[in-house]
Amino acid sequence: MTTIESAGAVDRDRLTRAFRDVRDFTGGLCRPLRTEDYVVQSMPDASPTRWHLAHTTWFFETFVVRAARPDLPVVDPAYHHLFNSYYETIGDPFPRPKRGLLTRPTVEEVFEYRRLVDARVREILATADEAVVARVAPALEVGLHHERQHQELLLTDLWHAFSQNPLHPVYRDVTLDDPGETRPLRWTTYDEGVVHVGHSGSDFAYDNERPRHRVFLETYELADRPVTIGEFQEFVDDGGYRRSDLWLAEGFDLVRREGWRAPLYWKEGYGVTRCFTLAGLIEPNPAAPVSNVSYFEADAYARWAGARLPTEFEWEAAAAALPVAGNFVEGEAFRPLPDPAGAGAPEERDAPALPRQMFGDVWEWTSSAYAPYPGFTAPAGALGEYNGKFMVNQYVLRGGSCLTSRSHVRATYRNFFAAASRWQCSGFRLAR
Amino acid sequence: MTTIESAGAVDRDRLTRAFRDVRDFTGGLCRPLRTEDYVVQSMPDASPTRWHLAHTTWFFETFVVRAARPDLPVVDPAYHHLFNSYYETIGDPFPRPKRGLLTRPTVEEVFEYRRLVDARVREILATADEAVVARVAPALEVGLHHERQHQELLLTDLWHAFSQNPLHPVYRDVTLDDPGETRPLRWTTYDEGVVHVGHSGSDFAYDNERPRHRVFLETYELADRPVTIGEFQEFVDDGGYRRSDLWLAEGFDLVRREGWRAPLYWKEGYGVTRCFTLAGLIEPNPAAPVSNVSYFEADAYARWAGARLPTEFEWEAAAAALPVAGNFVEGEAFRPLPDPAGAGAPEERDAPALPRQMFGDVWEWTSSAYAPYPGFTAPAGALGEYNGKFMVNQYVLRGGSCLTSRSHVRATYRNFFAAASRWQCSGFRLAR
Amino acid sequence: MTTIESAGAVDRDRLTRAFRDVRDFTGGLCRPLRTEDYVVQSMPDASPTRWHLAHTTWFFETFVVRAARPDLPVVDPAYHHLFNSYYETIGDPFPRPKRGLLTRPTVEEVFEYRRLVDARVREILATADEAVVARVAPALEVGLHHERQHQELLLTDLWHAFSQNPLHPVYRDVTLDDPGETRPLRWTTYDEGVVHVGHSGSDFAYDNERPRHRVFLETYELADRPVTIGEFQEFVDDGGYRRSDLWLAEGFDLVRREGWRAPLYWKEGYGVTRCFTLAGLIEPNPAAPVSNVSYFEADAYARWAGARLPTEFEWEAAAAALPVAGNFVEGEAFRPLPDPAGAGAPEERDAPALPRQMFGDVWEWTSSAYAPYPGFTAPAGALGEYNGKFMVNQYVLRGGSCLTSRSHVRATYRNFFAAASRWQCSGFRLAR
Amino acid sequence: MTTIESAGAVDRDRLTRAFRDVRDFTGGLCRPLRTEDYVVQSMPDASPTRWHLAHTTWFFETFVVRAARPDLPVVDPAYHHLFNSYYETIGDPFPRPKRGLLTRPTVEEVFEYRRLVDARVREILATADEAVVARVAPALEVGLHHERQHQELLLTDLWHAFSQNPLHPVYRDVTLDDPGETRPLRWTTYDEGVVHVGHSGSDFAYDNERPRHRVFLETYELADRPVTIGEFQEFVDDGGYRRSDLWLAEGFDLVRREGWRAPLYWKEGYGVTRCFTLAGLIEPNPAAPVSNVSYFEADAYARWAGARLPTEFEWEAAAAALPVAGNFVEGEAFRPLPDPAGAGAPEERDAPALPRQMFGDVWEWTSSAYAPYPGFTAPAGALGEYNGKFMVNQYVLRGGSCLTSRSHVRATYRNFFAAASRWQCSGFRLAR
Repeated sequence: MTTIESAGAVDRDRLTRAFRDVRDFTGGLCRPLRTEDYVVQSMPDASPTRWHLAHTTWFFETFVVRAARPDLPVVDPAYHHLFNSYYETIGDPFPRPKRGLLTRPTVEEVFEYRRLVDARVREILATADEAVVARVAPALEVGLHHERQHQELLLTDLWHAFSQNPLHPVYRDVTLDDPGETRPLRWTTYDEGVVHVGHSGSDFAYDNERPRHRVFLETYELADRPVTIGEFQEFVDDGGYRRSDLWLAEGFDLVRREGWRAPLYWKEGYGVTRCFTLAGLIEPNPAAPVSNVSYFEADAYARWAGARLPTEFEWEAAAAALPVAGNFVEGEAFRPLPDPAGAGAPEERDAPALPRQMFGDVWEWTSSAYAPYPGFTAPAGALGEYNGKFMVNQYVLRGGSCLTSRSHVRATYRNFFAAASRWQCSGFRLAR
Repeated sequence: MTTIESAGAVDRDRLTRAFRDVRDFTGGLCRPLRTEDYVVQSMPDASPTRWHLAHTTWFFETFVVRAARPDLPVVDPAYHHLFNSYYETIGDPFPRPKRGLLTRPTVEEVFEYRRLVDARVREILATADEAVVARVAPALEVGLHHERQHQELLLTDLWHAFSQNPLHPVYRDVTLDDPGETRPLRWTTYDEGVVHVGHSGSDFAYDNERPRHRVFLETYELADRPVTIGEFQEFVDDGGYRRSDLWLAEGFDLVRREGWRAPLYWKEGYGVTRCFTLAGLIEPNPAAPVSNVSYFEADAYARWAGARLPTEFEWEAAAAALPVAGNFVEGEAFRPLPDPAGAGAPEERDAPALPRQMFGDVWEWTSSAYAPYPGFTAPAGALGEYNGKFMVNQYVLRGGSCLTSRSHVRATYRNFFAAASRWQCSGFRLAR
Repeated sequence: MTTIESAGAVDRDRLTRAFRDVRDFTGGLCRPLRTEDYVVQSMPDASPTRWHLAHTTWFFETFVVRAARPDLPVVDPAYHHLFNSYYETIGDPFPRPKRGLLTRPTVEEVFEYRRLVDARVREILATADEAVVARVAPALEVGLHHERQHQELLLTDLWHAFSQNPLHPVYRDVTLDDPGETRPLRWTTYDEGVVHVGHSGSDFAYDNERPRHRVFLETYELADRPVTIGEFQEFVDDGGYRRSDLWLAEGFDLVRREGWRAPLYWKEGYGVTRCFTLAGLIEPNPAAPVSNVSYFEADAYARWAGARLPTEFEWEAAAAALPVAGNFVEGEAFRPLPDPAGAGAPEERDAPALPRQMFGDVWEWTSSAYAPYPGFTAPAGALGEYNGKFMVNQYVLRGGSCLTSRSHVRATYRNFFAAASRWQCSGFRLAR
Repeated sequence: MTTIESAGAVDRDRLTRAFRDVRDFTGGLCRPLRTEDYVVQSMPDASPTRWHLAHTTWFFETFVVRAARPDLPVVDPAYHHLFNSYYETIGDPFPRPKRGLLTRPTVEEVFEYRRLVDARVREILATADEAVVARVAPALEVGLHHERQHQELLLTDLWHAFSQNPLHPVYRDVTLDDPGETRPLRWTTYDEGVVHVGHSGSDFAYDNERPRHRVFLETYELADRPVTIGEFQEFVDDGGYRRSDLWLAEGFDLVRREGWRAPLYWKEGYGVTRCFTLAGLIEPNPAAPVSNVSYFEADAYARWAGARLPTEFEWEAAAAALPVAGNFVEGEAFRPLPDPAGAGAPEERDAPALPRQMFGDVWEWTSSAYAPYPGFTAPAGALGEYNGKFMVNQYVLRGGSCLTSRSHVRATYRNFFAAASRWQCSGFRLAR
């Protein structure tokens, strides 16, 4: 993972501020929680809040503090094992499905661990030699982005844990004004040709976004907004979950085996329009993007609608020129919202449509399997395990969601999950 | 479940005192815990501490308060679903394997639930009509014994949860004096004949201990103490876990599949004599009874030793005349201990041996499958589900353990678990 | 396993005749089969016909031929591994669930294997020294009974394999005359007292039937015939499979998980009275004993009917005085039949009822867990694995079925299967 | 699936000859088999030989005979259910994992089914109206290619079934002359640019090969031969299966869970160079291409070797100009062989290397996830289920193997399997 720091003098102030901002933001996300909420792991793919807090700290301790100050003893040797996620190169990680079995260290002890490591990082940034800071700055930068990812996972996993509880706990009771109406879907056309994709600049990007390279795209059209809850409801009402011809075979097996009949958080017995969110059980606006669908559901809907999912490069080519703006975690809505522009101003209706809501609201499934770019090489050492070893049987999602930090997203950013996953805030946009 | 109350005037004072004692004792057991410890469920068979606290309260609310005061609203209707264990007659219980996914109600709210129900029970005992108290007294009595059972399960489940944590948390740091030496094993002989087994008196006993009836026993011998850690170590050292000829076929399949090489809490990598207890990881006294073995391990050891397990009736006939005394939860050792009489006084060596440590220390596996006694009938209503529906593929254990309340055990008491279970404080005694 | 031979001169002629009869009978059972039918294993508990043919031959080769003639090479060393069932003492058995993956040796080669081993056994019986024959005679005797068991399993497993096929293959197209009517159920009363159970004579019995010993039985009543198809239909029609209060908890979990709604071979979509048999899909006589039910179904029916299952000793005490007669495999009906005595002659109606159909028709589930008798010891050597190592989590069935050889059954005979099993021809009789 | 027939007059003679050739070839493949060999299904992914024979026949009956002659009754209505593979549109297929449970129809009856359907197809081709033949000709053409696919699967599945048998059955005892030596690996360089991929001609191709379209390829190099057994042995000897850093995370989980230590058919205990083939257990030539490896193993080897797998388009661009020649099923070697050109003639060594063994020997894993081409649409009707519904979580293989028919392969042909599959004759070639 290349960072700007590798090529020049390190801006200690910027890093110190960025470090404080990211760490504080995590703390802020925890404010509504009770101690019990930090402990639970609702499925093997998810992690307890407390684990996210400790693991991100372990990341800084391992890749920054220990690299800069090998003379210091670690805070607790047991944490090295407990809070390593999957870096086999540097030890034997504690089994992921058992993260929810740990009651100690306590939440208070984990926050104390954060404070201790934070103090050391700040001290290193303040007092270490230029060479030392330059050496650890790239890992620190990765650590900041890494924590941004875990902020989103923390909320996502908590959402899933709360959804198991018949009491429908509320994380944040967000009241929103009139949330807009469904805009008629318009298509934007893109001409065939060779485009450049991937990251090239000197600012931060993950290794999986590089190298920038060329792909040929045939002519395509892209919807100017994601599929909405109201539209997906039509698919459900049309028997979409019962018609095998609409589904990939593996997806329909899953539908049958798991008894899927709607997106993950749609609750039956209340009428299908009740939806479990971080604000509890609400009656959602049909104009909001549908979320918490798997790749299989996105693909089936697209087939039903006579369209398809875009490839990740079709998406990226369309997004490249757009500003990174939208409904992110900083907006504190904590759920996808309708486009605030609603049906659009009259003048806009005649203009060529530009895709909207490309960033924020919902991660958008693409039809692209997650694969290395031509010339990709994983960095040497443990950080080489960050992305590369997951490049199989996963599909790429783009654009970030309402739980993503605005600072974490860009047009070249590649998120990835298994096709069956639906606990992420994942939706989709049609192409054809 | 017949109780003394059913036959005469109810002693309100006795019940009030007993109720307070039992409920307070539960509270006392929780004192060493941190909030996080209440939440975790380490396997489907176990339950979180918080669940035990709420479920025992639900039991009193459902079978006492609602029976006596149907006019009162319940504390929280959702609790009726969440904290019902397995009474299908009165509703749809929340799925057992998911008890550890709940973070709400919080621990504080559960303690508040206890306080509210306690107040109502006390008020009923103090002020309700004689007829009302007489009607609910039997269920109240069952509830007291039920909570005694859950006090033991609470500790057993916590022990298992703590055992998952590489930090080896300590529940209570019990320091014990010189704990005694292994006494040579002696055999007590019992003559053949018809004996009476089961409960007959008017004091409390569960339905599964009744009716008292006759069985014929051939002549047998019973060991005068349980098998010890030191003796079990010899079995392990002799390759006991690798010799298929010593095992029941289903047991040896389990040994192979699970990779069992010692009792559940023996920890490798420290030398086999380290053992995880509620006092943390300790070096146990070899003279203490071995615990946390399955029926299969007990049976294999017995075959290795040229002996067998006793039937539950052989055990009961031997125990009937003995006082109910031993190492119980009230003694606060929280682990099995060697017989304090050690090698025994000289004069005792010549006397006919009486079995010792029959009560307390470890539950003793018997070779008896858990089955109804001749003439058994489950009570009508939901409480009929208490015992009868589990009478298949379980084996009977007798005598109570160091985690059992002294007030909860008697010679006729039948505990039962699946042959593969080993998270209970279960050991065994030889017969031949 | 004690046999008469161990105590005196061996009757070579009797053994030679018995050997020929048993082996020929197996051959006769195979006559209706096509080559393809020999190969299939329809579930891990079942075995292919070809495997039964080879395994019983391996038994004679291993325990008789090799014992008598260690100088002879075995027919094929690979067979020693392939056709060992579960005797860990003498090698590593080929995994049971994979028996259906073998296409070689071919059926023809397996029959050739039988011919070769038969010739060797006959030659040993004809020409070996008295001492040699005396030494191997007990194992030969066991081998004969062992093959009788496998004759029944061969048919049972074939029945299950055929039941998987929507073509409903017919093993033998048995046409039966008017098969009788349902007789009103009568109860026979047995007084309390000590009875002797188990085998004591010098004729053959398995080790698990010994030693003969005493048990005390409280007064009980036993139904004079098994529960019929028509009666079980009433239970089904009354919602028996949907009422949790009728079931053991483990049984009801199974009902829900597996979607059980009737006995194993009752076929829906034809009206519930169609039943798949070795004569194909037939409309059964409601007066015939119900078969292919699990212990759980038998137990639930009994609870519904206000009765219970007998213990194995209640059954044995009632059967001890009765002649071993009934609908066995030699009668070639291949399915349970109504009592030919029908409603009984008038004079019989006034006489004290004796239980009927105790032998043959259906194996009868008892409420007794399979356990060793007091003083039981498994024989030394591999044959000690025959019975003892299965004495856990199984329930005893008594009396033989329409697929059992008359020569194989006696009042003390103990068959055993897991409570969930229902591919055996298993029914039940009520007690109270 | 477009075919040449759709655009002009049907050549009845060509179709008749092609039909006869394909059907006869299937019969020829079965000649070495014993009846038992047709029945077995060694895992859910595989099918019994008999099923392949019947299913391909069902395909012609369903899509040709019934389409041309709706007036004729089907051969057997039950076959419509039993031998439908996965066409949900036209009925409820018999569950795939249970194909090996059927013993009827017998092998003889299946061959009779083939004869009856063959006669009907021939009669239609000989006598039906021009319009009728034109209407069914495309499906007939698909049926021929479909049967070619199943010829390969028949051998592949048989290979797997035989591999389960410790007797190491031999399908065909092929003796081969000195089979050549390992040629030093050379790299061919391809320049960057836009290339056309996919099928465009009027001759037969599957729907998944269309539409022809453009992709941009960065400069790449391709190995001039597949990785050999000898080379893969070096990877094994270097601890390749134990080094997590070489593997995709999902692959290494599989290695650990399944205990993989070598390609599927390498047998331990004989020295690693013994390999189970359709000629039985042989000592393979190290110069032959390695086969029966999963995508994960191919990918791990490539990483170990400092290279990568090619994309399917890199492969296709290199193959487009090469003749379709190599070691196919028609050559009757039934296993991958070294390049007969061996180390190459001296003059060739100086010439620019052209990739060799691109066709035949082993299917070559590419790094491309199986996905629809831009503009892909599945045909209407049941045949639309042929390919499209599998386009997820599969990886593309190219070039055919020693078990593929020469007539079945072309440069644009896309085979696909899950990344964990290794029972196909699958190997790989390096790129960089």
